[in-house]
Amino acid sequence: MNLVTSVDPRTGNNVETVAAHTSDDEVAAQCRAAARATGVLGATEPARRAQLLRAIATELENNRDGLVPLADRESALGPVRLHGELTRTTNQLRLFADVVTEGSCFEATIDHADPAATPPAPDLRRVLVAIGPVGVFGASNFPFAFSVAGGDTASALAAGCAVVVKAHGAHPALSAAVARIMREVCVAHGLPAETVGLAFGRAAGQALVQDPHIKAVGFTGSESGGRQLFDLACARSDPIPFYAEMGSLNPLIVSAGAALERTEQLAAGIAGSVTLGHGQFCTKPGVILIPAGAAGDALLDRLGAQITAVAPQYLLSSGIRDAFHEGVERLLRTTRVEEAARGSRPDGAGTLAEAVLAQTDAATVLHDRSVLTECFGPAALAVRYRDEDELIQVLEAVPPSLTVSLHAGAEEIGLITRVRDVATRRTGRVVFGGYPTGVAVGWAQHHGGPYPATSCSLFTSVGASSIRRFLRPVAYQSWPDALLPPALQEANPLGIPRRVDGVLEPAHPVRD
Amino acid sequence: MNLVTSVDPRTGNNVETVAAHTSDDEVAAQCRAAARATGVLGATEPARRAQLLRAIATELENNRDGLVPLADRESALGPVRLHGELTRTTNQLRLFADVVTEGSCFEATIDHADPAATPPAPDLRRVLVAIGPVGVFGASNFPFAFSVAGGDTASALAAGCAVVVKAHGAHPALSAAVARIMREVCVAHGLPAETVGLAFGRAAGQALVQDPHIKAVGFTGSESGGRQLFDLACARSDPIPFYAEMGSLNPLIVSAGAALERTEQLAAGIAGSVTLGHGQFCTKPGVILIPAGAAGDALLDRLGAQITAVAPQYLLSSGIRDAFHEGVERLLRTTRVEEAARGSRPDGAGTLAEAVLAQTDAATVLHDRSVLTECFGPAALAVRYRDEDELIQVLEAVPPSLTVSLHAGAEEIGLITRVRDVATRRTGRVVFGGYPTGVAVGWAQHHGGPYPATSCSLFTSVGASSIRRFLRPVAYQSWPDALLPPALQEANPLGIPRRVDGVLEPAHPVRD
Repeated sequence: MNLVTSVDPRTGNNVETVAAHTSDDEVAAQCRAAARATGVLGATEPARRAQLLRAIATELENNRDGLVPLADRESALGPVRLHGELTRTTNQLRLFADVVTEGSCFEATIDHADPAATPPAPDLRRVLVAIGPVGVFGASNFPFAFSVAGGDTASALAAGCAVVVKAHGAHPALSAAVARIMREVCVAHGLPAETVGLAFGRAAGQALVQDPHIKAVGFTGSESGGRQLFDLACARSDPIPFYAEMGSLNPLIVSAGAALERTEQLAAGIAGSVTLGHGQFCTKPGVILIPAGAAGDALLDRLGAQITAVAPQYLLSSGIRDAFHEGVERLLRTTRVEEAARGSRPDGAGTLAEAVLAQTDAATVLHDRSVLTECFGPAALAVRYRDEDELIQVLEAVPPSLTVSLHAGAEEIGLITRVRDVATRRTGRVVFGGYPTGVAVGWAQHHGGPYPATSCSLFTSVGASSIRRFLRPVAYQSWPDALLPPALQEANPLGIPRRVDGVLEPAHPVRD
Repeated sequence: MNLVTSVDPRTGNNVETVAAHTSDDEVAAQCRAAARATGVLGATEPARRAQLLRAIATELENNRDGLVPLADRESALGPVRLHGELTRTTNQLRLFADVVTEGSCFEATIDHADPAATPPAPDLRRVLVAIGPVGVFGASNFPFAFSVAGGDTASALAAGCAVVVKAHGAHPALSAAVARIMREVCVAHGLPAETVGLAFGRAAGQALVQDPHIKAVGFTGSESGGRQLFDLACARSDPIPFYAEMGSLNPLIVSAGAALERTEQLAAGIAGSVTLGHGQFCTKPGVILIPAGAAGDALLDRLGAQITAVAPQYLLSSGIRDAFHEGVERLLRTTRVEEAARGSRPDGAGTLAEAVLAQTDAATVLHDRSVLTECFGPAALAVRYRDEDELIQVLEAVPPSLTVSLHAGAEEIGLITRVRDVATRRTGRVVFGGYPTGVAVGWAQHHGGPYPATSCSLFTSVGASSIRRFLRPVAYQSWPDALLPPALQEANPLGIPRRVDGVLEPAHPVRD
């Protein structure tokens, strides 16, 4: 029997055995149970789902003192970051409670009958409903915020969908602990424990994507892993939406003006963004576009000093450490490394790694684009460009990314406009004068982008609108009012914003 | 060279040669041009796109007297139906003009900066933008409404996306004529002619789906054709959304009470819906659930008489005629045909076909589900059920459909509720006391459903929200206000509804 063990990345030691790998039969049973649970959860009114989400948030907070040390033992991310991440996770649950209570997300739309039309138009009412049970693949780098109780799960529950989470192998003990808490909250709220399922092991993940009860999947992870599972989802006899957020290079551009004016400030800011969480963010700027010339030389010099001055830290797992070393080797092979990257080599069983800045010029990158590949961890590639045209060429050569960031003077309108237009086509978030790491959970957030940043550019995996991924429309034609979903009943008992005969009607207060 | 010929289905004669099959190189050139055109169209303000859509509608109306006879010659659908369909098509273009002018469809969302938050939150503004050039596959059965100027094209143009349409082989001359009109309108409005491209031939269709410039595809047609192209779209190195509406069985349920109370009215209504457009609607009720017992016997008797009394009519093409005959043979083989289906056999080169009603009982269907397959054309299968449980079992056995219709007495609340709950899971539109054919173009319409009704249950191919298929989100962080898309500028120059700091703000008037 394959066992799932919890490994301390600081030592490489197996600390405990968490579970056995989940068998195909067990995955099937969990998915069946999740379908039944979706029947219950999907039929609840949004206010009840909001209560559930808030109660999960509260219970996670109540268990903070046990969960954070456990997360730290499995991720080595440190308590400060993990406390912050848990807060972000519970805030996210509470935001989604607000979003479903506000109710616009269900897009309730009513066209009253028009007997005078040619042909006569029947009464037609459309609303978004739960798509069905959702498979969720937790990420290694956010053991709270993109894992069992993370964004995919929170948005699926908000939509009325039960989830079966495939626990990430880097934090199985934390995953089990969080799932246990969530299941207890579900039961306490009169919902099936199976509203939150949990599976372990790679084979279980593949079975999950192929299970006939699963109707959508949320995934955060590598491009290769995401694509493999995406292909399984598409090859089903009934293909399902597979939402993979697969990371990216996140080009960050410094204009000649900015390099000259804000050398020190930019060096510190970029170095901080590259090494935040020891570079283990999908929004880490992996390609830094720096102008040729003296100002760029000075910036690069300061940036190299700042990055290589960062103290070695532990990476999330030995797998990520090994992949990081391979990525650094690739950078060293394929770029002219004018500044010696100190690199980092395995030092025994732990995952300690040093930060790296490689550099090259635009012509080299445009000649051999293989270097434009994400290196997950504390590494970045500085690319020098001679002029605006070359800058744009490199930007077009970088595969579509989650973010593009630009540091320029407000007066450089020509440059800003060109970058905006290219970036709008090739990314999900365009940042001006800032850094891409740090993805606030709010109404306007977008965390996505054209392939390979994500498998489906139409949706976000962070923020209020991520709920839309797990909803599908149903229209009711001439249906008896009392038997319509409450969102569509004439009297609007939920008090939500609706579009009625083409006109957006605002929310109205509902008596308790 | 393969030539594209226009065939008259009434005679089987080739009337004219329209074009050569479009070569792979020509498809690639059209897609490149569509990418450039999308750069222009996508950057226009919604009001300008609305003008374009309205001008196309006007120009199609102006050419009505030429287009309708041409459509009739290629489809044999008759001038009355085709005049109505053209009106529906131009109304659809005008609705989408209204939708983009109203502007909610762009989901403009603004979260102002909050320096007091932990961590400080930057200014973040999200809007939906054109996804890129769209491939459109016209359908045989709606030469206007689901073809070159149909719903997929109209919604793509509304979203700011240029299109390359793969003309349906059943109406190539009409496709060429409509595309010519649309391209002339584009040029007259200062937009590239290549905003509307047109390709001919099956190979061109496959090249279109695989072209790297194409970023989404809308398709209406058969399940086998749709799935084949869906698989190509998913297998791309950069998979793209493929929206296929693939038709369905559209179960229609008659309760025991309704059968007794409204025998004559139901027989006429169902027969009319089955044979409307000679059964060539994707919403044709293909499975009619009729109760066992005397009331059901009477209804079936009257229904059979009504359907077989329908005069033979011409089908759209010889391919559809052949598939229809195969489908009827399949029905005759696998159901106990208690009432002789008169069927219909090829009579020379034309596509004349008679309407068919086959029948069987629920137990037979549940034993051999192969009969639950769409037969495109004027055929339906009546299935007798003994009780509510058996009815629900059959409903669960029918593959997910575009629609489910229920005729029941208002007092049969238990039945209505059960059908509603199953149908909500398994269909896109639930009709009470009516018929599924006739899909009004409005704000609340939903034309979709779980696979195999469509390849992606999240979206509709008819109605205001179909535009969402061709939009993707982009967020601008801390971006200079004057260089933001107008939808996101602080002063709201478009006057559209927006969500600001979590609160939905209504539209406001804009000075001209």
